[in-house]
Amino acid sequence: MTPPDPILLANIRIVLSRTSHPGNIGGAARAMKTMGLSQLYLVDPDVFPNSQAEAMASGAADVLANAVVCASLTEALTGCSLALGVSARRRDIMAEVLAPREAAFRLLVEAQAAPVALVFGNETSGLSNEELGVCQGLVSIPANPEYSSLNLAAAVQVAAYELRLQALDETAWSPPDIDGADLADVERFYVELEKTLIGIGFLDPASPKRLMPKLRRLFARTRLAKEELNILRGVLAAVNEKAESSASNR
Amino acid sequence: MTPPDPILLANIRIVLSRTSHPGNIGGAARAMKTMGLSQLYLVDPDVFPNSQAEAMASGAADVLANAVVCASLTEALTGCSLALGVSARRRDIMAEVLAPREAAFRLLVEAQAAPVALVFGNETSGLSNEELGVCQGLVSIPANPEYSSLNLAAAVQVAAYELRLQALDETAWSPPDIDGADLADVERFYVELEKTLIGIGFLDPASPKRLMPKLRRLFARTRLAKEELNILRGVLAAVNEKAESSASNR
Repeated sequence: MTPPDPILLANIRIVLSRTSHPGNIGGAARAMKTMGLSQLYLVDPDVFPNSQAEAMASGAADVLANAVVCASLTEALTGCSLALGVSARRRDIMAEVLAPREAAFRLLVEAQAAPVALVFGNETSGLSNEELGVCQGLVSIPANPEYSSLNLAAAVQVAAYELRLQALDETAWSPPDIDGADLADVERFYVELEKTLIGIGFLDPASPKRLMPKLRRLFARTRLAKEELNILRGVLAAVNEKAESSASNR
Repeated sequence: MTPPDPILLANIRIVLSRTSHPGNIGGAARAMKTMGLSQLYLVDPDVFPNSQAEAMASGAADVLANAVVCASLTEALTGCSLALGVSARRRDIMAEVLAPREAAFRLLVEAQAAPVALVFGNETSGLSNEELGVCQGLVSIPANPEYSSLNLAAAVQVAAYELRLQALDETAWSPPDIDGADLADVERFYVELEKTLIGIGFLDPASPKRLMPKLRRLFARTRLAKEELNILRGVLAAVNEKAESSASNR
């Protein structure tokens, strides 16, 4: 077998959000390294660094030592063009539900051009709706409907295994469909969009309904190219200018 | 998706041999249950039952409670027609090295007719040559050559995931090629064969070379049908009778 393309695997981030048990962080690091992944991002972990994490990481101490601790999921996704959230449950907020094999393929295609991320939520509560809103798709590991709760590190192992298998298998990758925008920029756009919609009186902050989640869903489904994001931000700026000048003329 | 055939998954044994850490037994039970597997066999575990195993099993306490503790690998394989050993390393003794996907397919085909087993060795030393000699094939999870040591429960998770995926995917299974002999009977045959070869002076117990491993390899590669095993045991009996009568006539 040909060794997997090192650039592809190096462009894949495993993001663990709000992990409770440090042993799971170590176990995830070990699972990653056995499959050739190295980019571990930790969003607001309960306990880190920690000796139990180190013990469970075993020979993957380097992955743990290089882990990037972030205050928010958006921070962990800075520079990424695609983020998929792993969850046992389907949520109506999400654009798509992918099997691990399909998800690995998508991530690897995009990883040719930019970093991408696979996001795992808290052990007990999973990904929050807010976290899922930042992702462009949902990955669900097919599991026993009577007991579908994989251990966090075991779920990372399955996902990393599919990523490695496909990185090994594929000989010619098609280029990504679009030049995906940086997800941190997309989040900034959502903030601007919300402010603008409030400014023009379309969104009532006292009764937001599900307007922003619905708009997030729309954009997550299409995924925004860099150029498209620039256009949309230009539109928002023009709308805001117009709204301000109409306010000052009143 | 159609639910996986319950008979197929119920005929798959996960055999953990000489496990050192009880937490890994619990983690393996959890991994199994998330994928709909229930048949856990433990060969000479260091510590069992144990509270750490229970903690790591989480919602899979039933799998743990129903685990069958055995004194030997042969005992754990009684009733099985196929046993594949999971190992990171290739050993010259083995007939075949299968990828997890291929192995899952083989196991499921055979599981239509009889129980089958996937055998995992000790965390540190893996499967011994003796244990591998009892298996008919080797399964190797593709891993990073620089660090290929999956956690035991994580390896069980990957294998169980492939089993579930294929049990879900396949709509029409071909019947097994042969009516495979019970592996406990095959082990009895090896004992008889060795005795016979010593009896006729072909095998020198003081200098056995690698004769028995080589014969095991041959039979593991072909796999013995029930009828074939009966024929071979008949041949041995005839040889032994002949040898005894020639001894008494001397």
